Amino acid sequence: MDLRQRISERRGGAVLFGMTPPRATTSAEGVQQVAERTMARLEPLDLDGLIVYDITDESDRNPVERPFPFMETLDPAAFVDELEGWKKPVVVYRCVGKYEPEHLTTWLGAQDTNRVLSVFVGASSRDKQVQVTLPKAQELWRETSPELLLGAVAIPERHLAKGDEHERLLAKQDAGVGFFVTQVVYDVNAAKDLISDYHYAVKARGEEPVPIIFTLSVCGSLKTLEFLHWLGVKVPRWLQNDLEHSEDTLARSYEQCLDTADELIAFSARLGMPIGFNIESVAVRKAEIEASVELAREVCERMAHLR
Amino acid sequence: MDLRQRISERRGGAVLFGMTPPRATTSAEGVQQVAERTMARLEPLDLDGLIVYDITDESDRNPVERPFPFMETLDPAAFVDELEGWKKPVVVYRCVGKYEPEHLTTWLGAQDTNRVLSVFVGASSRDKQVQVTLPKAQELWRETSPELLLGAVAIPERHLAKGDEHERLLAKQDAGVGFFVTQVVYDVNAAKDLISDYHYAVKARGEEPVPIIFTLSVCGSLKTLEFLHWLGVKVPRWLQNDLEHSEDTLARSYEQCLDTADELIAFSARLGMPIGFNIESVAVRKAEIEASVELAREVCERMAHLR
Repeated sequence: MDLRQRISERRGGAVLFGMTPPRATTSAEGVQQVAERTMARLEPLDLDGLIVYDITDESDRNPVERPFPFMETLDPAAFVDELEGWKKPVVVYRCVGKYEPEHLTTWLGAQDTNRVLSVFVGASSRDKQVQVTLPKAQELWRETSPELLLGAVAIPERHLAKGDEHERLLAKQDAGVGFFVTQVVYDVNAAKDLISDYHYAVKARGEEPVPIIFTLSVCGSLKTLEFLHWLGVKVPRWLQNDLEHSEDTLARSYEQCLDTADELIAFSARLGMPIGFNIESVAVRKAEIEASVELAREVCERMAHLR
Repeated sequence: MDLRQRISERRGGAVLFGMTPPRATTSAEGVQQVAERTMARLEPLDLDGLIVYDITDESDRNPVERPFPFMETLDPAAFVDELEGWKKPVVVYRCVGKYEPEHLTTWLGAQDTNRVLSVFVGASSRDKQVQVTLPKAQELWRETSPELLLGAVAIPERHLAKGDEHERLLAKQDAGVGFFVTQVVYDVNAAKDLISDYHYAVKARGEEPVPIIFTLSVCGSLKTLEFLHWLGVKVPRWLQNDLEHSEDTLARSYEQCLDTADELIAFSARLGMPIGFNIESVAVRKAEIEASVELAREVCERMAHLR
């Protein structure tokens, strides 16, 4: 079953791999190399598709210095064109505030909806100047290209703080969103809270839940851990200690990602909730990327019974 | 190995059963019956000992109405005298603020330290009028009866809120405390946070950790759940939903208690931390008490490898 069908039928089991496009300054040849290397790494895996992020400078979101400096990256839509050898679907992120409305609608209209899905992301803070708000972008999508499967972000940490993330999911679902992708999960309880509240809220409305894709990322160093914090990822205190004191932070985080996957698979199965996973590496170090690929392989195995 | 030796040697593996003395208005005959019924229930189990609570009116701690009305109970020290048929150790709680200093020292001096251990509990709120503060009571103990094993309470929820509970544990340990007993644990992450921070803090001081006894209680109804909240027990959102929507709250909470035990056993083993368990029933309903006894039996089995 392909990703589009799986999501349209609101089934769980999807496993995706998330990646950032190369830096904007990369030569055409360099971009081509990245694309080929990525496909060579991922083709042996039983993935349902790729996610390509749209990176914005989110320094407005967090006054603390970004542990890894912000680098302008290639437009994900442009990078996807370089991935033509990749035959599976691609979920293209769009930070909608960056684009003119016409740019968005033109792009939407030009996509092969069997190959491309999209996730629209709103502004990183309320004060940010945007060209298109998230609700407006969703409206443009409904008007121009509703057959393209559209997703949105879900943030378990926001649920922990405010307790209303499940209502945001319902509102986005009302706007036509067909799936959710979370930010990186290190607090499995926050993720379970969100699954649970969303489950009961959807049920109370007599509706069906759409799949939530939980993002996992290994963490190979204390610098990466700091970056996860900067991104707003909550790492439980005991796990923070484990990672700080581990002789092999990468191996410890890898094990934790698998534990998280197992716990979320078991929990969502009990509630009959459709979930999937997205494996990414928030760091660009080779060891971390290779561990991510291996993690994706193991998560595919763990989801095999749903596929 | 008996409880006293286990705790003195700072080893994990203890399993205790916690109970509240009968109401203060119970007749002498009634008290005798409670004592006999309790011993008959618990003797077949492989417990290390009993905990007998000292109940105070904690309405100052929480302005919300107490879901189960407060009932004056028998002095735990008096009730323990009725348990003379119970041959294993008893941990007698003392809400020290209730007693005159002379009352405490007389009681301490009169105990058989092979049979009786104690846990001193401070005031339930800062504004409460007390006759003896916790540090003063610990000083009286050091002066009059240091050979009696003294414990103190540990509150993972306070650690979640303030992040300094491990420092309180170290300060209590400096005062001579030989073990800790937690309040009821439903948030396993908070318990893991406390174990972890305590582990690394003790290690940094070049000292040895003392056992932490984690308290588990089943929850047989939404009323009991409300009472757990009133007592300050944090129940994660997803678990709250599970319990509220379960067709069998008691069975669901029972399963959760075992999951908590398993997770804490595995986690503390990895860090080499000595832990034990205390099984109580915060409610007095027969089904809940019987489930607690069964839970204690299963927890004994799970701890058998440490005993």
